[in-house]
Amino acid sequence: MTTEAATERRAGRPRSERAEKAIVEATLDLLAAESGVAGVTIEAVASRAGVGKTTIYRRWPNKEALIVHALAAVKRPLPEPSGGSVRADLLQLASTLGAERKRKHAKCFWNVAGGAEKYPELYARYRHDIIEPRRAVIRGVLSRGVETGELRADLDLEVGVTMLIGPLTTRPPGEGLPDGYAEAVVDTLLRGIGAPPE
Amino acid sequence: MTTEAATERRAGRPRSERAEKAIVEATLDLLAAESGVAGVTIEAVASRAGVGKTTIYRRWPNKEALIVHALAAVKRPLPEPSGGSVRADLLQLASTLGAERKRKHAKCFWNVAGGAEKYPELYARYRHDIIEPRRAVIRGVLSRGVETGELRADLDLEVGVTMLIGPLTTRPPGEGLPDGYAEAVVDTLLRGIGAPPE
Repeated sequence: MTTEAATERRAGRPRSERAEKAIVEATLDLLAAESGVAGVTIEAVASRAGVGKTTIYRRWPNKEALIVHALAAVKRPLPEPSGGSVRADLLQLASTLGAERKRKHAKCFWNVAGGAEKYPELYARYRHDIIEPRRAVIRGVLSRGVETGELRADLDLEVGVTMLIGPLTTRPPGEGLPDGYAEAVVDTLLRGIGAPPE
Repeated sequence: MTTEAATERRAGRPRSERAEKAIVEATLDLLAAESGVAGVTIEAVASRAGVGKTTIYRRWPNKEALIVHALAAVKRPLPEPSGGSVRADLLQLASTLGAERKRKHAKCFWNVAGGAEKYPELYARYRHDIIEPRRAVIRGVLSRGVETGELRADLDLEVGVTMLIGPLTTRPPGEGLPDGYAEAVVDTLLRGIGAPPE
């Protein structure tokens, strides 16, 4: 790369990055607003982000693609846990999931779920592109636990994944988790609520 | 009661019951639509239900009261389980919760949760009037189980309640539960996912 090209790139990239960031923010703001998915139009995003519509269309072919991209910016891939014990890995995942609840645009997801029936393709793409890879990380931890003998050999991995995610997400929106809650969920999941055999 | 009064009542009651039903339906339709809580105005409800605004105001002082009343019509009190084993009771509750997912207006609740930040009082009232009594039924089953020794003596009842509800509600909206799923959740909750002690 020549010095000129490098300079141009340094100068140019931040500008388009700034635009992209503004577009993503505007999309999330609109998505978190009352009208949810219905309120996200390319026009409204452009106006809110202070960019032209072509700037958006250059990057995303349609509103659905833009929304899924924006959602991915809030619900990022789950970091692969460090691979200690299953309990340690699940605690790490639960704490990440808990922390996400407090993010600015967390309530987007309620609106996306609320719009699932009206926008089935958007919802399917959101599940496929964003949710599924996250579930896969949790599934990997459980699967490893079955292999090491830490977990029941007959564990239904899908049920296990949802039993970790469910209690962390089905709580009043916008609130963080109470102290010790994530740990209580993981330990309850691991040992069950039934009385231990005598 | 005179015969005339009885006749009048027979004739009159169905009419006002029909109006109330139409108002509740209209409220739920609007609540399930994209704008969620924002789309529910006394004006819109009256127009959709084919009644005058005064008919609504005679019964409900404001939009919040109407919405909570309408939500209660979809999310009814949980039937007290028959009081067999804890497992049988939890299965009964889980199956009720699963069946509710398929109701016409089930997605209302996503929109109510999505609007929690903007309508905190409505959301608080919904939690207090509708959700809390339902949690109390589940809590009662768990508490009885601790007394009978079927459940761990150190069980945190709130965690237990949410660990039953969470995995049943955090699933793609509008879908029923797969066959055997509710049972798998209950059994996983009871015995845990950890390998049984040797």
